[in-house]
Amino acid sequence: MKAVATIHDDDFLYEQIAARFERQVKEGLLKPGDKLLSVRALSREQGISISTAYKAYVELENMGIIEARPKSGYYVKFSPSRFSKSPAVKPPLTSTGQTTIAEMIATVYQHMPEESVLKLSRASPAMELIPLAKLNKSMIEAIRKSPSGNSNYEHLQGNISLRNQIAKNAFNWGGNITGDDVVTTQGCMEALVFCLRAVTKPGDTIAIESPTYFGIFNVMLSLDLKVLEIPVSPEIGLDIDYLEQAMDKVDVKACLFVTNFSNPVGSCLPDERKKQLVTLLTQKQVPLIEDDIYGEIYFGKTRPHTCKSFDREGWVMLCSSVSKSLAPGYRVGWCIPGRFKEQILNVKMMHTISSATPTQAAIAHFFEAGRYDLHMRNLRRALYTQCLRYMQGIAAHFPPDAKVSRPQGGYALWIELDKSINAFELYKAAMQHNISIAPGQIFSTDGRFTNFIRISFGMPYDDLVDKSFMVLGGLIKALQFCAEI
Amino acid sequence: MKAVATIHDDDFLYEQIAARFERQVKEGLLKPGDKLLSVRALSREQGISISTAYKAYVELENMGIIEARPKSGYYVKFSPSRFSKSPAVKPPLTSTGQTTIAEMIATVYQHMPEESVLKLSRASPAMELIPLAKLNKSMIEAIRKSPSGNSNYEHLQGNISLRNQIAKNAFNWGGNITGDDVVTTQGCMEALVFCLRAVTKPGDTIAIESPTYFGIFNVMLSLDLKVLEIPVSPEIGLDIDYLEQAMDKVDVKACLFVTNFSNPVGSCLPDERKKQLVTLLTQKQVPLIEDDIYGEIYFGKTRPHTCKSFDREGWVMLCSSVSKSLAPGYRVGWCIPGRFKEQILNVKMMHTISSATPTQAAIAHFFEAGRYDLHMRNLRRALYTQCLRYMQGIAAHFPPDAKVSRPQGGYALWIELDKSINAFELYKAAMQHNISIAPGQIFSTDGRFTNFIRISFGMPYDDLVDKSFMVLGGLIKALQFCAEI
Repeated sequence: MKAVATIHDDDFLYEQIAARFERQVKEGLLKPGDKLLSVRALSREQGISISTAYKAYVELENMGIIEARPKSGYYVKFSPSRFSKSPAVKPPLTSTGQTTIAEMIATVYQHMPEESVLKLSRASPAMELIPLAKLNKSMIEAIRKSPSGNSNYEHLQGNISLRNQIAKNAFNWGGNITGDDVVTTQGCMEALVFCLRAVTKPGDTIAIESPTYFGIFNVMLSLDLKVLEIPVSPEIGLDIDYLEQAMDKVDVKACLFVTNFSNPVGSCLPDERKKQLVTLLTQKQVPLIEDDIYGEIYFGKTRPHTCKSFDREGWVMLCSSVSKSLAPGYRVGWCIPGRFKEQILNVKMMHTISSATPTQAAIAHFFEAGRYDLHMRNLRRALYTQCLRYMQGIAAHFPPDAKVSRPQGGYALWIELDKSINAFELYKAAMQHNISIAPGQIFSTDGRFTNFIRISFGMPYDDLVDKSFMVLGGLIKALQFCAEI
Repeated sequence: MKAVATIHDDDFLYEQIAARFERQVKEGLLKPGDKLLSVRALSREQGISISTAYKAYVELENMGIIEARPKSGYYVKFSPSRFSKSPAVKPPLTSTGQTTIAEMIATVYQHMPEESVLKLSRASPAMELIPLAKLNKSMIEAIRKSPSGNSNYEHLQGNISLRNQIAKNAFNWGGNITGDDVVTTQGCMEALVFCLRAVTKPGDTIAIESPTYFGIFNVMLSLDLKVLEIPVSPEIGLDIDYLEQAMDKVDVKACLFVTNFSNPVGSCLPDERKKQLVTLLTQKQVPLIEDDIYGEIYFGKTRPHTCKSFDREGWVMLCSSVSKSLAPGYRVGWCIPGRFKEQILNVKMMHTISSATPTQAAIAHFFEAGRYDLHMRNLRRALYTQCLRYMQGIAAHFPPDAKVSRPQGGYALWIELDKSINAFELYKAAMQHNISIAPGQIFSTDGRFTNFIRISFGMPYDDLVDKSFMVLGGLIKALQFCAEI
């Protein structure tokens, strides 16, 4: 006769039972489509509590091995990719309750370079969208052009040809600048870090969007900055009135906003509201760090303006890079720091001496050879198509109550699922199928977007993506079902 | 009749007079070797004070136009490079008294990439010493080898081939590590910043050497860290007893030392003392950030050990790069962070996402192709020869009381001049001849090394360097003479 399980034994028990089922499926004793015992029957059969039986099934669902069909019961699932990978490289199945947001981010992004994982969590262009042959040609020509093969230290402010090209392109967003206004950096992330270091000190409060790219509040934490989260909606973008009222109460030392196609929401602040924001911050003499990394990825007729284009007194520090448009791995970014140029140069000198010479020279050459404009036209067209296809795929495979953002640019769909869904659990279950999505929790400091996920449409919508959507839809339905019973 | 000049007019007057002489020299009215009026005679002739007359001559000396010959008077100097450049690109002649150390550093290094300046201030290999053809070949082959042309994000920890090669090379300094112990960075400077960010918080005190590379205390200031300067002598290196005593009084959170061929002094901590240092810090559980950037540039028979090689408990974080050995502009560096690996990866993720892919791949290829060992043998031989030639040149042209360090590796000579010499004034005077030296002031937080200069022997000793030494020697003698009268 079995003793009543203690909580500890209980944990052990449900895992044991789940493992046993897993083995049976693996060995073909249970086949896709087989119906399992009901929770109650399993409880009776094994002499375990109903709660332990439930937990065993939920675990199996999270692992993608079984599925719950509403008002019918549990079935062994069909999943072609199920056993294609050894479990050793999977993220550990820890409880969400004990997982900090930093740990979630690390979990989500540590598997990024693995070839076998379908990266729906990565907001950057797929290999197919990068003009690789031309980029390589630019690298090789830049080496040949330079008497030093680009092996020497670059100027602290950055490659002059690249800076001039960035200034030339600024025309598209309404900018009237010269190459001397630009400082190059190692990607947009370093530009943001330099801006923050230039205008803040530890303990300062910075206003950011909510939800926002986790990298942004991560760097805030790392620089000992406090964050004030300003709501952003898919429709109207940043809530400037909320910001203004908050600034009366809190001493905000700087703002850091993604004004065009904010990540993950995808909203674009209209020109009038950009002007309003710049006027407000200029009047209060508060620097605006404008992350414009998605600005070039617009689906409309014209490139949206930036706040920088309305900046008369130099309070806007625009940051961007080629990571979303051309070559993430080149780590070529820049900053147009307005009145804070000297501070930025100081921080850059102290932290890195100079940015890498060959990569800057290659991107400068790519621009100068006139390869950028054509590439961007192609890229935008491809991404817009992919965006629409992804939305269709979600409509076809996700539960009908899933709400999807309608981005006008950028790389990401922001999806609200049923309130019962824990997105990090969904992430873990999806990873069992080698599908990586970005759980909503990592887009705020307090993990509040528990039932949201971000899906990036950087990859062409092919069969693999379609199947993944089927799997994801199934997992969401299963999780939803579990929560209901 | 002239009125007695006020202080303001006086400033104006000596500049006017100096400018008149300059014009006369330029127009050939005064020729090299011509003797000028004595200070007293000039004062009488122009109806100006003796002090104004002195100032005019000192200004002309600083500009390198005239020279003072002891017990003889002032003469027009011969200097072939005198008028080869327009003055617009020269650093402004501000008074040292009002120049902060940060400003001095900025002044010294802002002209670095200019082709026309002879860079005796740059501690890195001259173009002639870089195996450019092979390096370019490695870059091109690395692009061809990669299906993504190295355009994609690299793994957070860094290129795996590169990390394995770094681990393999570690054998030479007594290291027993694998590629998994290595994290790549954007040059050694970023590695140091990551280490500091990983183990300190603002307000902490860090022990550093004195004198030390200005970049090190610069980054301390930028991270709001306090520094405790530990003396280092050319003979015995770091004063570990001083450190131990200081640590009893001050709460030192970390140490940052250049253990091999410290910059600028060039000393190398003997193995026994390295062991002693590691034992001390391990016992006190204080991390040692070991900057080993010059370790490969040894003139003796074997590569010196590192503190890391005596580190049993992971308290040593070794930082290095290829900037001094292969390609400064590639910005490829690394860190071997011992027990702090997770913290370093966190900081790296928050600040840069990943290091540039193409440059890491190219350096990895260079190593793998077996090109590194041969190159380093050649480089070391060339640098040792240059070091000796530079010392000869200094002996030939500098005043006999100049004391020169005898480095056993690295790139720099540390030269003590007569106490009356202000090295930053010497720097400014030398820049008039397009010669850039590093003034001693920038190697401590309080500018205490006022009569020291650092001269780097990265460039082959050719006629141009020889002539520059002649010019420098003349300037030093002139400054010394001025101080005496």
